[in-house]
Amino acid sequence: MRKVLVINASPRGQRSHSRKLTQLFTQKWQQQAPNDVIIHREVGQENIPHITEEWIASAFTPPQRLSPTQKQTMELSDQLVAEFKSADVYVIGTPMHNWSIPSGLKAYIDHLMRFNQTWTFESGKPDGKYVGLVNHKKMYILTSRGDAGYNQGELNAHMNFQTPYLRTVFGIMGIKDITEVTLENEEYGGETFQESLNKTHQRIADLFEH
Amino acid sequence: MRKVLVINASPRGQRSHSRKLTQLFTQKWQQQAPNDVIIHREVGQENIPHITEEWIASAFTPPQRLSPTQKQTMELSDQLVAEFKSADVYVIGTPMHNWSIPSGLKAYIDHLMRFNQTWTFESGKPDGKYVGLVNHKKMYILTSRGDAGYNQGELNAHMNFQTPYLRTVFGIMGIKDITEVTLENEEYGGETFQESLNKTHQRIADLFEH
Repeated sequence: MRKVLVINASPRGQRSHSRKLTQLFTQKWQQQAPNDVIIHREVGQENIPHITEEWIASAFTPPQRLSPTQKQTMELSDQLVAEFKSADVYVIGTPMHNWSIPSGLKAYIDHLMRFNQTWTFESGKPDGKYVGLVNHKKMYILTSRGDAGYNQGELNAHMNFQTPYLRTVFGIMGIKDITEVTLENEEYGGETFQESLNKTHQRIADLFEH
Repeated sequence: MRKVLVINASPRGQRSHSRKLTQLFTQKWQQQAPNDVIIHREVGQENIPHITEEWIASAFTPPQRLSPTQKQTMELSDQLVAEFKSADVYVIGTPMHNWSIPSGLKAYIDHLMRFNQTWTFESGKPDGKYVGLVNHKKMYILTSRGDAGYNQGELNAHMNFQTPYLRTVFGIMGIKDITEVTLENEEYGGETFQESLNKTHQRIADLFEH
């Protein structure tokens, strides 16, 4: 039995295309592995607060020295980290917003990147070498983009601050086995978008064939 | 008389290094151009809300068709856009947080990127060609990073989702004349950091020599 954490980052509900991708993915997963546990973390429609000065000070204080107020400051982050580390598989559904990720997903990542919990320094000191503490996990990133050509080697790749960023930051936590599925051309609508949609659904179906 | 908009993105107050850089910069600017107007926009310590589904729908509705509720949804964004467009010079002070910008600065950018206000499509339709509507402006990006080597051509450049992102997104708005000054090695402290600090202060001083 595995635990699958589905993280939706779109501010949109029913109109969100990335959300529909995680729904489709989750359905197929459940068909194939009905005993797995699926949990949901909403970071698009629920407000994930920006980290604060108190948060930063508390995050770099050894746990045994935290004041009651500091412990309270870290409560949400502690909860998000515990949930994240308890999962075996991650499914992130996110749009590209202004060539990057939505600010809610960035806030979530800031809460997850905890020293000595999700990452650490190899030598214990800031010598530039990071060691991930979230190992042997699998991540799927299901994204939606208004335009196309943002994948590696393509015309707009240099403007993609979405998936290369997610690979970097989750890679530092130790998550290296990452599969991306991208839905493109959302803003064009019509046939162009329908073709992208068909292709993307096929790619998701293919993930469950092997 | 120019209008200089100083945007601070650090969640930290007195302990923020990027904030100290914008203070130093602003002092020097005022010495050189005492009649210029300096305005401040706080996006690190004041909560900039994540954009919502209603926000997205309203932002792509023609202004004359906005309902009173939709107008209210766009109020903060309208205010931020008006303030931004009224300025001649931008000074952004931001740390690198988890190889990117703080989520508060991302939220601010999402509020600024408004169709037909700060950018548009050349043909009026999504054909992939963006036209910036914020032209003839000058931007300074003053950043602070825990580590070093993130500048172009350096060892960690591929992990810099901070300044290349800011150049991209503000570039699409039409802001092409961007000068970066980076303070490095914050997390090492001691002599290493002091050297970086001296170098950075010198670079800021140099900006006012010419």
